[in-house]
Amino acid sequence: MTPHPLNIKRHFINKPAIPTKQHCLKVKQLLECKHSSSVIYVKGKSESTRDNTDVDMEFRQESNFFYLTGVDEPGFHVIIHLQKERVYLITPHIPENDIFWKGPNDNTRDLLEKYDVDEIVNESDLPHLLSMLSPQVTHVLDTTQATELTRRAPMFKSVVHTESLLPAMNEARLIKFSWEIDIMRQVTYASSQAHIALIQQFQLGMTETHLAALFRWTCALQQIYKQAYLPIVASGPRAATLHYTKNNQIIPSNTHTLVLVDAGGEKLCYASDITRTFPVHGTFSQESRVIYNIVLQMQEAVLSKLRPGVLWSDMQELAMKVLTIELVHIGILKCRHGDQLEELIQMGVPSAFYYHGLGHSVGLDIHDVGGRNVKSDEEDTFEFLCNRPLEKNMVLTVEPGLYFNEEMLDIWIQYPGYEQYFDLAMLDRYRLVGGVRIEDTVVITEDGYENLTKVPKQIHEIEALMNKTTDPL
Amino acid sequence: MTPHPLNIKRHFINKPAIPTKQHCLKVKQLLECKHSSSVIYVKGKSESTRDNTDVDMEFRQESNFFYLTGVDEPGFHVIIHLQKERVYLITPHIPENDIFWKGPNDNTRDLLEKYDVDEIVNESDLPHLLSMLSPQVTHVLDTTQATELTRRAPMFKSVVHTESLLPAMNEARLIKFSWEIDIMRQVTYASSQAHIALIQQFQLGMTETHLAALFRWTCALQQIYKQAYLPIVASGPRAATLHYTKNNQIIPSNTHTLVLVDAGGEKLCYASDITRTFPVHGTFSQESRVIYNIVLQMQEAVLSKLRPGVLWSDMQELAMKVLTIELVHIGILKCRHGDQLEELIQMGVPSAFYYHGLGHSVGLDIHDVGGRNVKSDEEDTFEFLCNRPLEKNMVLTVEPGLYFNEEMLDIWIQYPGYEQYFDLAMLDRYRLVGGVRIEDTVVITEDGYENLTKVPKQIHEIEALMNKTTDPL
Repeated sequence: MTPHPLNIKRHFINKPAIPTKQHCLKVKQLLECKHSSSVIYVKGKSESTRDNTDVDMEFRQESNFFYLTGVDEPGFHVIIHLQKERVYLITPHIPENDIFWKGPNDNTRDLLEKYDVDEIVNESDLPHLLSMLSPQVTHVLDTTQATELTRRAPMFKSVVHTESLLPAMNEARLIKFSWEIDIMRQVTYASSQAHIALIQQFQLGMTETHLAALFRWTCALQQIYKQAYLPIVASGPRAATLHYTKNNQIIPSNTHTLVLVDAGGEKLCYASDITRTFPVHGTFSQESRVIYNIVLQMQEAVLSKLRPGVLWSDMQELAMKVLTIELVHIGILKCRHGDQLEELIQMGVPSAFYYHGLGHSVGLDIHDVGGRNVKSDEEDTFEFLCNRPLEKNMVLTVEPGLYFNEEMLDIWIQYPGYEQYFDLAMLDRYRLVGGVRIEDTVVITEDGYENLTKVPKQIHEIEALMNKTTDPL
Repeated sequence: MTPHPLNIKRHFINKPAIPTKQHCLKVKQLLECKHSSSVIYVKGKSESTRDNTDVDMEFRQESNFFYLTGVDEPGFHVIIHLQKERVYLITPHIPENDIFWKGPNDNTRDLLEKYDVDEIVNESDLPHLLSMLSPQVTHVLDTTQATELTRRAPMFKSVVHTESLLPAMNEARLIKFSWEIDIMRQVTYASSQAHIALIQQFQLGMTETHLAALFRWTCALQQIYKQAYLPIVASGPRAATLHYTKNNQIIPSNTHTLVLVDAGGEKLCYASDITRTFPVHGTFSQESRVIYNIVLQMQEAVLSKLRPGVLWSDMQELAMKVLTIELVHIGILKCRHGDQLEELIQMGVPSAFYYHGLGHSVGLDIHDVGGRNVKSDEEDTFEFLCNRPLEKNMVLTVEPGLYFNEEMLDIWIQYPGYEQYFDLAMLDRYRLVGGVRIEDTVVITEDGYENLTKVPKQIHEIEALMNKTTDPL
């Protein structure tokens, strides 16, 4: 392959948005590859259309590819030579006529300015580049990507490893760089403003759908044009459905009704994740106030302990303990003596009201690397980080909840031997509260944590926001 | 299978949103199936997550399944017994624990009320139902669906046809029922209001992204929460890129700058499709006024001819002829005598400025059934309906355009023998106009057409909208 002078990075006029080469070097370190000559090959996502039509789907890059390149455009590949520490960005071949439909492509100079890579290579030169680099070992994410590589460069001779790259990337992505935290701070701030706007602008008669649209619009007014996940706007009993995303009901107006909003924008593919719960009448009822404050206590107890070295499982236990004590305190759970508190927890009784994990890692995916998709069948909770201690620059959510889910309560109360733990009359008093979740996104720091979420959560603050006439954003 | 009394439709309390059983009967007629016992089997779309993560993607039903059932929820199937004219809606099996995450499912009574079907059957009873119906022939959309059927009901013996159903569905969907037109009238009206809001609220300094977000928000204020396609907000030279959807540039403010907005909402899976082009300064420059009026003339010439029996190819020719005459008239194209006009068209010269089809069918897909994906290599235009005559209740767009695309113009002018047709000085005078497209969605009626689009398009109307201080919607 003849080297093209323009294809090689000289200097930046504009800095790329993210110094992704540092990400590549971190992955290299974690790969601990002992071969003198090895490369990483990753194919980014292509454009897609809906079903068998020509309706374009919105493009969103695959997170691992974005981590290595910062490229949120379709059809690119990347090759990283580990020993030379060179990043080759492979540009897609675009048919000539597409220019009139999709617009001109960035030229090499544009790409070298936009992205933190060393060389730009045309897709047609990919086999050439590989044979020039002739690595002993090629690391790919999975067998699908291995097949893709073989298809594109059938003559390429290298041992292809599918086992090491993904764990290395997971590990790299788990502990964030300062610039990653900066982006997440910005997007969490904007999402905080959107939550505040919803709390301030809420009026009886609004639908869940309208609030979801208002959230998106308030994010857009702050240049956040994508959501990190489908927003949850759950009013009344629906707050007890954890991933309720239909958002298609009229918000009821009874005294106890709360609206739970779990939503966060996305910037440069980085997520934010916030939940707030507010009363439709602008004032918490006596019952909803009690329930809300229990969840707040659970969260504050956990936040006060967060620092490097802490085990997440201990935090889960702490939240559960606060919940149990408080449910006994207000009389929903029955406990005749101190020892029985431990029994309640051992029997899993509080899980009737709180049936999800305490939080999760956040990053390029909303449930980010580090324990996602790891469900323990026994506990049915979302295991975080397989119980390794927290480390500085992990970003995670702290999101306790307390829910009155009719089906869930029926299961627990009707289970042989469990009815004794519940005071049904007291339960009936609180049922209509529906559910409360309070969720902040935090960064673990040297000696504690930084809360990226900037939405008030004390009862008096929320009531003040709702009852003050303020200009919409 | 024991019949469950509740599973069989008795009467509606609420009418379903769309009488889809009429759709099924129309498809039956068009299938012309001569077998005494035959069924249609279609599997609707399932939920999906992004890449290898647990991030839920927004759900949107496959259009053919929606046409037959009106169901915009994941995991359903449908079986239609053609001779009995009975529609069986098959509900997905949902794991017990999912109820706490996704909420309770509709019960049989709810489903029979919401949807125009005769019976509700659990997924686990699907093999049972099929063996009870024991059809000679089963019609499916394609081989993937045939495989799905075999996987679900391995013991099922029936001849499976993959060839007839899709053409019958295409034919059925092409000519709309009155209720389909009603929905499209509503969504096109709401989208019209959103276009008007953009024209009214536009201010210098706004970005393309902001306008796209404002369009979505104005739709949301009218209970339209989805877009039928990715909005195009193209300012300045980008207006000449037909499917420009990046929408990420600052809008330039030179005298000639226009903003082209091609966007439409979606309601009950039915699309709307509108394009308007307006000047950033609130007033058209002399040059942009001339170009805009040519496109308007092209559209008005076509609209005046629309009625049943008309050939779309004749409409394309008509638009091209108006364009050619006007480009000669303003001096961009050179024509020494009357005969040369025909020569210009024969040589394809006006295609340098107008390089897409005149329109397309609209319905459950934005480029709906009827000619989509049929490209003639010679002409490189979007063939509409393979040139069959227009019929009453077809819904289609009329969207002529005129663009100054640098790359496109270079190709034409530099082509041997073609330079003679262009007046380059005159071309330079108009280049900065960038591009204009005007697009309406219309229904063919008994003796003409009904224009569903309600956005003003005369120059004085657009200028009045931009210069009147009106309350935002």
